[in-house]
Amino acid sequence: MNAEDVKGFFASRESLDMEQYLVLDYYLECVGDIETALAHFCSEQSTAQWKRVGVDEDFRPMHAAKVIDYDVIEELEQLSYPVKHSETGKIHACRVTIAHPHCNFGPKIPNLLTAVCGEGTYFTPGVPVVKLMDIHFPDTYLADFEGPKFGIDGLRNILNAHGRPIFFGVVKPNIGLSPEEFSEIAYQSWLGGLDIAKDDEMLADVTWSSIEERAAHLGKARRKAEAETGEPKIYLANITDEVDSLMEKHDIAVRNGANALLINALPVGLSAVRMLSNYTQVPLIGHFPFIASFSRMEKYGIHSKVMTKLQRLAGLDVVIMPGFGDRMMTPEEEVIENVIECTKPMGRIKPCLPVPGGSDSALTLETVWRKVGSVDFGFVPGRGVFGHPMGPRAGAKSIRQAWEAIEQGISIETWAETHPELQAMIDQSALKKQD
Amino acid sequence: MNAEDVKGFFASRESLDMEQYLVLDYYLECVGDIETALAHFCSEQSTAQWKRVGVDEDFRPMHAAKVIDYDVIEELEQLSYPVKHSETGKIHACRVTIAHPHCNFGPKIPNLLTAVCGEGTYFTPGVPVVKLMDIHFPDTYLADFEGPKFGIDGLRNILNAHGRPIFFGVVKPNIGLSPEEFSEIAYQSWLGGLDIAKDDEMLADVTWSSIEERAAHLGKARRKAEAETGEPKIYLANITDEVDSLMEKHDIAVRNGANALLINALPVGLSAVRMLSNYTQVPLIGHFPFIASFSRMEKYGIHSKVMTKLQRLAGLDVVIMPGFGDRMMTPEEEVIENVIECTKPMGRIKPCLPVPGGSDSALTLETVWRKVGSVDFGFVPGRGVFGHPMGPRAGAKSIRQAWEAIEQGISIETWAETHPELQAMIDQSALKKQD
Repeated sequence: MNAEDVKGFFASRESLDMEQYLVLDYYLECVGDIETALAHFCSEQSTAQWKRVGVDEDFRPMHAAKVIDYDVIEELEQLSYPVKHSETGKIHACRVTIAHPHCNFGPKIPNLLTAVCGEGTYFTPGVPVVKLMDIHFPDTYLADFEGPKFGIDGLRNILNAHGRPIFFGVVKPNIGLSPEEFSEIAYQSWLGGLDIAKDDEMLADVTWSSIEERAAHLGKARRKAEAETGEPKIYLANITDEVDSLMEKHDIAVRNGANALLINALPVGLSAVRMLSNYTQVPLIGHFPFIASFSRMEKYGIHSKVMTKLQRLAGLDVVIMPGFGDRMMTPEEEVIENVIECTKPMGRIKPCLPVPGGSDSALTLETVWRKVGSVDFGFVPGRGVFGHPMGPRAGAKSIRQAWEAIEQGISIETWAETHPELQAMIDQSALKKQD
Repeated sequence: MNAEDVKGFFASRESLDMEQYLVLDYYLECVGDIETALAHFCSEQSTAQWKRVGVDEDFRPMHAAKVIDYDVIEELEQLSYPVKHSETGKIHACRVTIAHPHCNFGPKIPNLLTAVCGEGTYFTPGVPVVKLMDIHFPDTYLADFEGPKFGIDGLRNILNAHGRPIFFGVVKPNIGLSPEEFSEIAYQSWLGGLDIAKDDEMLADVTWSSIEERAAHLGKARRKAEAETGEPKIYLANITDEVDSLMEKHDIAVRNGANALLINALPVGLSAVRMLSNYTQVPLIGHFPFIASFSRMEKYGIHSKVMTKLQRLAGLDVVIMPGFGDRMMTPEEEVIENVIECTKPMGRIKPCLPVPGGSDSALTLETVWRKVGSVDFGFVPGRGVFGHPMGPRAGAKSIRQAWEAIEQGISIETWAETHPELQAMIDQSALKKQD
């Protein structure tokens, strides 16, 4: 690309009608001339040949992605990761902001993904290392998306649970239990104080526990628990399946007694999530398998917050994500960015509930609450409830007791003196540390 | 996990009914005791709590993923990539082979992905760095998949093209042309000798070029080209879209004149590809956006050949993939592994046609053919045909001339002496090198 050609891929924000563009933030490692590499980067994700041979035309003003800002962070001795590539020259780490005209693809998730993290993004000459850091949508683009049907308020209203976190629990053992055995455990956990007993992301419609039978047992147990506690409860059924059977699985699960549905967002695809969200009669909760495969590297792939944003855009009412602490291998700042993505202003799109999860129990609740900085989150223990030494009812109780301690500003150790279920978790943890 | 617990996640291949298991190959970097880390790795992807509190039971024999083989490659000074994690101890790079019981999820792509590259895979204590290298399916599992409807033979029969590569071309400019302008260029390229003129992966159903209008124009141009050349031709329409409109887009495109369909596999999701494959009346061609985001790191993510295998399993008749040379940033061995995945024995699943692509032209054809080692591949230039200095008809001719030279064992330089279209590509390349 010559110097004149390069210019066609740069513009000032002021010169563009920004309602017609998505704004994309990338981290790039550029080899050779920086502006040439950036022009190629825009060209490859939009129009790599902007005129016909022998015709005087230029599709760049209308269709080219354009650099609207960039910073050179530093010169690097070598690429941050060894990648075979074709260019030679100095290597620079850069942050670049690109305006991509959304008329190139329209308000469609698969076509959006193709543009912003497709062949162009990862196969630009001179840009072997790239991470998509963020996407910003203008309101005109967002207007074509429906977003969450229930959102945080809708979920709180169903549960009549306000001013506090929502208490989830992953029924364990996660695989192997018959529907009847499974429902008994969930029932106990509801009596103990869980709002939502959920299927594990690994447990869907399987030969040894069909979604129909499981939802029927769990629906019955749920209604019994609601009658006994006087509180609304949710059975969250995992209907992750081939996309052509998602609506059918929705109908079977809801008809039989599930009153919220879990979907593994990336495994079914974000577009299938959107389809289901438009159809669903109950809140839709997303789980995070697959995402870490492209989000964990600091300087390569796609930032996890892009996926949180897209899951909300696709219509999930709740987004379960890797939470705090070393166990979940995610920098604290990244978890917080993901939590914030769920509730920050986004055109007409409703906020969704963030659920930062991973090996939680009564002993981690205060930390999660402090780090989130609000009560608008879901808390999702698994073994912390269902592996409790006194059983799942006590496990759920221990979570609610931990919340009582927080509400009253009392340490959980003090509160545990008069609350044996909480004390048992403290003792179990002390024993494990001695191991 | 204590030493007894660890044992429950190890087994010999001989002790298992291997028809009931998928075999998974991973590269792992383990922190601390190796066998404990491997047991956790199996536990997290299957059953992390294998018995209820107070019940004498063990779900591991039936449901646990089990290590059936592992090698320690070397001890490492540090992890290959900096990842925050919870364990301490020596670090070892390992190759591990795991048998995962497929009854845990069944013959469903989203549930398969959840098991083999989900939360368990990327969030196991002591395994912060992991790459899924390969998956092996037993025939009983494959029997529930349909695979490609046409396959290589079906595509060759439609085109009446045997004993040679299939010649594709990506119509360029890829975005901006009206359907009529687009069809004229495609028409020229068919006359010049392309088998298949295709939409770019970025061009789908957009406001300025609807799939309906484009397919109608291209269908007309295709039939004209077929009449003039006496050869069957294909217009390959990109129907990548939200999954709930894929069937409708299929119908519109086919009814109007498209006779093969392009789908961006990962952006729509592999399960949506499977749905479409079951429905399609015409060959289905997959393109590769998104895959590099998780496959490029040598020791992290998912190997690209896993995705090629899954695309074939999902029913793609043709898989377009990053090809040879530094330009496409993929090690040659990896390209070859992907090519081989398309045609190697796979139960009753038909072979699909590999299309290793990227900045191809008449000048790269011989190299690609030699590296593939067979004529069973597709060749897919873009600018190499549509940016040809004498226009797209000449561009397509230059490709066929290059193949004639190969068939006759003559160098393209010699053949070009009497074939001006080929000579023009050689001259253009020489000029670019002088730039």
